[in-house]
Amino acid sequence: MERDWETQFRAIPDPTRLRESLRRLSARPHNVGTAYDRDNAEWILAQFKSYGLSAQIESFDVLYPTPLERSVEMVAPAHFRLALHEPAVAGDPTSAQQSEQLPTYNVYSIDGDVTAPIVYVNYGVPADYAILARHGVSVKGAIVIARYGGSWRGIKPKVAAEHGAVGCLIYSDPRDDGYAEGAVFPKGAMRPAEGVQRGSVMEMEIHPGDPLTPGVGATKDAKRLDLKDVTVLTKIPVLPISYGDAQPLLAAMDGPVVPREWRGALPITYRMGPGPAKVHLHLKSNWGSKTLYDVIARIPGATAPDEWVIRGNHHDAWVNGADDPLAGQVALLEEARALGALVAKGWHPRRTIIYCAWDGEEPGLLGSTEWVETHEDELRKHAVAYFNTDGNGRGFLNLGGSHVLEAFLNGVARDIDDPETHESVWKRLQALQLAGATSASQRADVRTRANLHIDALGSGSDYSPFLQHAGIASTNIGYGGEDQTGVYHSIYDDFYWYTHFSDTNFVYGRALAQTVGTAVMRLADAQLIPYDFTGLSETINQYVGQLDTLAKHEADSIAELNREVRDGVFAATSDPRRPTLAPDTIPLAPHLDFAPLQNGAEALSRAATAYSQAVTAAEANDGAALASPAVASVNPTLVQSERALTSPQGLPGRPWYQHLIYAPGLYTGYGVKTVPGVREAIEQHQWTDADAQIVRVGEVLQAEAALVNRAAQELKAAASR
Amino acid sequence: MERDWETQFRAIPDPTRLRESLRRLSARPHNVGTAYDRDNAEWILAQFKSYGLSAQIESFDVLYPTPLERSVEMVAPAHFRLALHEPAVAGDPTSAQQSEQLPTYNVYSIDGDVTAPIVYVNYGVPADYAILARHGVSVKGAIVIARYGGSWRGIKPKVAAEHGAVGCLIYSDPRDDGYAEGAVFPKGAMRPAEGVQRGSVMEMEIHPGDPLTPGVGATKDAKRLDLKDVTVLTKIPVLPISYGDAQPLLAAMDGPVVPREWRGALPITYRMGPGPAKVHLHLKSNWGSKTLYDVIARIPGATAPDEWVIRGNHHDAWVNGADDPLAGQVALLEEARALGALVAKGWHPRRTIIYCAWDGEEPGLLGSTEWVETHEDELRKHAVAYFNTDGNGRGFLNLGGSHVLEAFLNGVARDIDDPETHESVWKRLQALQLAGATSASQRADVRTRANLHIDALGSGSDYSPFLQHAGIASTNIGYGGEDQTGVYHSIYDDFYWYTHFSDTNFVYGRALAQTVGTAVMRLADAQLIPYDFTGLSETINQYVGQLDTLAKHEADSIAELNREVRDGVFAATSDPRRPTLAPDTIPLAPHLDFAPLQNGAEALSRAATAYSQAVTAAEANDGAALASPAVASVNPTLVQSERALTSPQGLPGRPWYQHLIYAPGLYTGYGVKTVPGVREAIEQHQWTDADAQIVRVGEVLQAEAALVNRAAQELKAAASR
Repeated sequence: MERDWETQFRAIPDPTRLRESLRRLSARPHNVGTAYDRDNAEWILAQFKSYGLSAQIESFDVLYPTPLERSVEMVAPAHFRLALHEPAVAGDPTSAQQSEQLPTYNVYSIDGDVTAPIVYVNYGVPADYAILARHGVSVKGAIVIARYGGSWRGIKPKVAAEHGAVGCLIYSDPRDDGYAEGAVFPKGAMRPAEGVQRGSVMEMEIHPGDPLTPGVGATKDAKRLDLKDVTVLTKIPVLPISYGDAQPLLAAMDGPVVPREWRGALPITYRMGPGPAKVHLHLKSNWGSKTLYDVIARIPGATAPDEWVIRGNHHDAWVNGADDPLAGQVALLEEARALGALVAKGWHPRRTIIYCAWDGEEPGLLGSTEWVETHEDELRKHAVAYFNTDGNGRGFLNLGGSHVLEAFLNGVARDIDDPETHESVWKRLQALQLAGATSASQRADVRTRANLHIDALGSGSDYSPFLQHAGIASTNIGYGGEDQTGVYHSIYDDFYWYTHFSDTNFVYGRALAQTVGTAVMRLADAQLIPYDFTGLSETINQYVGQLDTLAKHEADSIAELNREVRDGVFAATSDPRRPTLAPDTIPLAPHLDFAPLQNGAEALSRAATAYSQAVTAAEANDGAALASPAVASVNPTLVQSERALTSPQGLPGRPWYQHLIYAPGLYTGYGVKTVPGVREAIEQHQWTDADAQIVRVGEVLQAEAALVNRAAQELKAAASR
Repeated sequence: MERDWETQFRAIPDPTRLRESLRRLSARPHNVGTAYDRDNAEWILAQFKSYGLSAQIESFDVLYPTPLERSVEMVAPAHFRLALHEPAVAGDPTSAQQSEQLPTYNVYSIDGDVTAPIVYVNYGVPADYAILARHGVSVKGAIVIARYGGSWRGIKPKVAAEHGAVGCLIYSDPRDDGYAEGAVFPKGAMRPAEGVQRGSVMEMEIHPGDPLTPGVGATKDAKRLDLKDVTVLTKIPVLPISYGDAQPLLAAMDGPVVPREWRGALPITYRMGPGPAKVHLHLKSNWGSKTLYDVIARIPGATAPDEWVIRGNHHDAWVNGADDPLAGQVALLEEARALGALVAKGWHPRRTIIYCAWDGEEPGLLGSTEWVETHEDELRKHAVAYFNTDGNGRGFLNLGGSHVLEAFLNGVARDIDDPETHESVWKRLQALQLAGATSASQRADVRTRANLHIDALGSGSDYSPFLQHAGIASTNIGYGGEDQTGVYHSIYDDFYWYTHFSDTNFVYGRALAQTVGTAVMRLADAQLIPYDFTGLSETINQYVGQLDTLAKHEADSIAELNREVRDGVFAATSDPRRPTLAPDTIPLAPHLDFAPLQNGAEALSRAATAYSQAVTAAEANDGAALASPAVASVNPTLVQSERALTSPQGLPGRPWYQHLIYAPGLYTGYGVKTVPGVREAIEQHQWTDADAQIVRVGEVLQAEAALVNRAAQELKAAASR
């Protein structure tokens, strides 16, 4: 029955409509605060209503600086003024909407006016500064020039400031998304010489959302911080530039030649500096507020209206944003339209379904975070899962999420056809994982495990407040991997580009709507919430093993480093013409007591087995017991299972992040750190903290195990009724 | 006493003289057949004589084609004629000797006139063609364009011809030795846009030396092959070009974008082709003969004149050749001068010392090979060791050679001071190996093994005929690793370049003379030839382990590949817009019988232990027994120990290579393949051959073990006399 409705659902999403919605929504620049941003929100609202959903706009007022003055000049050894401008391209109509385009900048950079020699810092992550130090190059008082990639962009100015830099330029090297990867726009999909990646540099690894209202919704009457008390702005001014602008700066540098891995594709000798190139960077923003327009639509649940399945994608963009985010947004609209059509035909989902089109994702997950913070109490009671998407392309299914949903998502993926190969998207993903596996044991795992592993979630899109703040089982889903893009966050990410170089016939847009819509329906209608704790416990056991290995590796590396320093290995291998400095010795690492973590993980394994046995027992007799309304009595316990992995104290130094298993890294930004309290303490050699965090996570795992055991008991009882 | 002479010796080599000899020898272009090549030989002869050595020139007549006509044009999509010319550089006087410079070409390329689309093949090794095939790109009927690096250059046209190409261009990518690595000449040491790497493309992996006289000396009356019967010329025309010339060709290509590892540093999108760029390549040479002038000097042995210690470096160059080969040649001259001075003071080496300045190394190890082939019978009787050098730079000691000399060379290295750090060069090499080690077990090995491992020798310099044809224990020694060079085989490898960018004060030239001269003296004077069979047997056991692992790895890879093909993994991961083809399945690998090899290696281990115990016993009582003239009776047995590792039938398909442990690779060229008969059969999936070669090598190892056991018995007997 449910399967019949799903089959009907998957026939509805229509590539022609996806295309036309994309054309409508991307027709003009629509970043936060623009007229077209609001216009899009109202159009989306009207769409939802036309599908028969009850819908409304929820507004928030947030800090949103926009540039007043931006200039970068090279003042030595020659004078050169950077263009900081993306030109219109013939044949691409929206690239010419110059008066409405947001200038190239990094939002939430502080204002500044600095003149200093430049230092090239590669990707600008901590490991890069260790190499600079080996060459005796300091960024103290310098402006760093970093290339995009290797970390989330906000990490670059943060680490630069920690090392004493006074300014930061971030450029897109053609090796990473320019001509080295393929023909540049408009001939091809890659970044042209003048293309610039805009983007947020808010310290989102501390908290995302409105900088003035951490932890609470930015409603009209919310208590707001003074600007001077905000913690998530950069410490130094930052500006993104194109490789056309970067090349003369990099070519004018001297100092040590950089290691091979630091080299881009510009036809120059990449050098560390400092200088002699000297740069004057001037930045001034309008520090005003703007209004966000989140569009929220509902299909009320017929049986369990207080259990919510939530689905979202943002609608704001940096400029026209055809790929990011609209390719995902238009799929979401097709899902909503299809669900509306099913409701009209008599389909009544068991649970309440909420469809959300977020505003303000680009500057810092603003719309989703403020909404989650505003509705936090209800969400903690009612939310079963959050399904996120954000942009879409051609290729393979990309599955990230809470591991309680791993088996569920695998099940959905098995039911979706790939529009290119006409095999299931699951089969194709398995083939991709096989092709990418690097060991026989990895291959055996891909071939024989019941489910393909899904990725843990870090940050970078609107699932973050749901998962990491409110403890709601979340997923992030998209297709991609077959087309490359060099227009990310530029004026060239538009309808022309998308319909020439990405999912040009929108068959992957349809596949996305089919995938996520099927997941929403199946989760909304399941009698027993289909969480699987075996996948979760296997994954956590894997993390515990990794942490043990990591701690040993760090301890061994420290011992070896100290020994080599003492033995004079660094001195003996230093070239007097290009001297390198020995690193400092490091205090030896103690042995850590992993027992609390291991005991917690083992308790969870046992509980998962018990729950899985209870499910198997209930599945006997053609699932008669599972079909019985009685099993629904287990759901209120299950709903709390992801919340049980959180702690109100949150992570060390960043209480907003309450999930103890998944978080964005303090020094990776978007990149996930699993068991972050423990992992980052080990990485940063904070051994006392590591021991304390092991105890905390151990407690949380014991609590989760207790909850899962309780659910198993309840299920046994319900099934025997 | 010996140590006193050595100390006196090491005080003699003089940086000022090294500099002046370098200036003299590099003053004009002196490739084979030029007036200055002969002039240099006569000057070297006069130097040897002036040091008090008896010396003479030995001449050979060899096939040596020089270009008459060379042209490359792009004929589509636009017309462009390549310069094929290295311009003079202001400030560098010898770069202006244009009338005497050899044009840029690859010697022993056949003549040809071909017009065809081009295909970019990366380094042009077999693995690259596998990737082209995955993308459906064939080189049949095409001209390939390969970059220098990744293999010896002669492999590139060979593999291209095997795949059906009709021509081959080889260019120097700026990523590998141009601006990506540092400032270009004359501002820095790296290759300028017009710089070209000349070089031989003879199929030296079949045999080096004169193509007309394989296996015999190219003396006046030698029997010569007809040109049509020569086996070592290329099968297709080949020409080297600069990156200035290559860029317009590569920029005019289409087809699949190449993988990341294939990309160079030119500011273009590297693509595979074929075409649309189409090239007309025209080559015509003068296929005449030239005369070689080997200079041979002797210090007769006082006690054992029939035991020879041989030392060589070539004197011919592609153009002025300051680094390659003269930086090594001038060190050799300083050694000869110092030894002459010691003889004058009363030092009389036990064994005969022979100093050789080879001609014709660049085109194909001609001078050394013809000399070894001419004197093969005497050499097989008398030669104890051959010490080779070839160029020199700043930095770390580079030790390659027969492993019977591993312990001996380590002993010499412990006695030489590094001119930069003033530690021993051994200590510095150990530090380098520690810094480069990638595992704890490697580091433990470097820290605790009695001796540092030395590299096995492939080819690329004059040790090859000594070691691999005549079975003479050989070494190759040089300093380097701190300066990079982008002038290899160009007109810019000259006195100006060397004295600005390499060992500018010639202290490493002095260190080289000290190192090799000490080795020559110590080996010439030792009562008992200081071969060590423990180092040899440890190394051979390592090789046997590697071969076992390699066979298993190949078998597993084949099985996995077949499984993935059958399971449709390649089809499922192919992008319809950029389709890739599945590879063919491969017949499964049988299990190989490694027992003969393992038994041989184990027999050698036991024999090595017995010999080592005999030496230890003889060393008791302050080495009284070792000092006794009686132990010299063991030497005739020892002299044959490297010869015992050879077989008159040689390697499969290349009988000139008689050493069964060391050879240049059939598909690497210079790169060594150890236990080559077995290793290459496994790599090429020729399982029957692999089994047969295992038996052959097992027999040779048993024979070596028997010889070493006999030497142990003889030593015990002699020491007790």
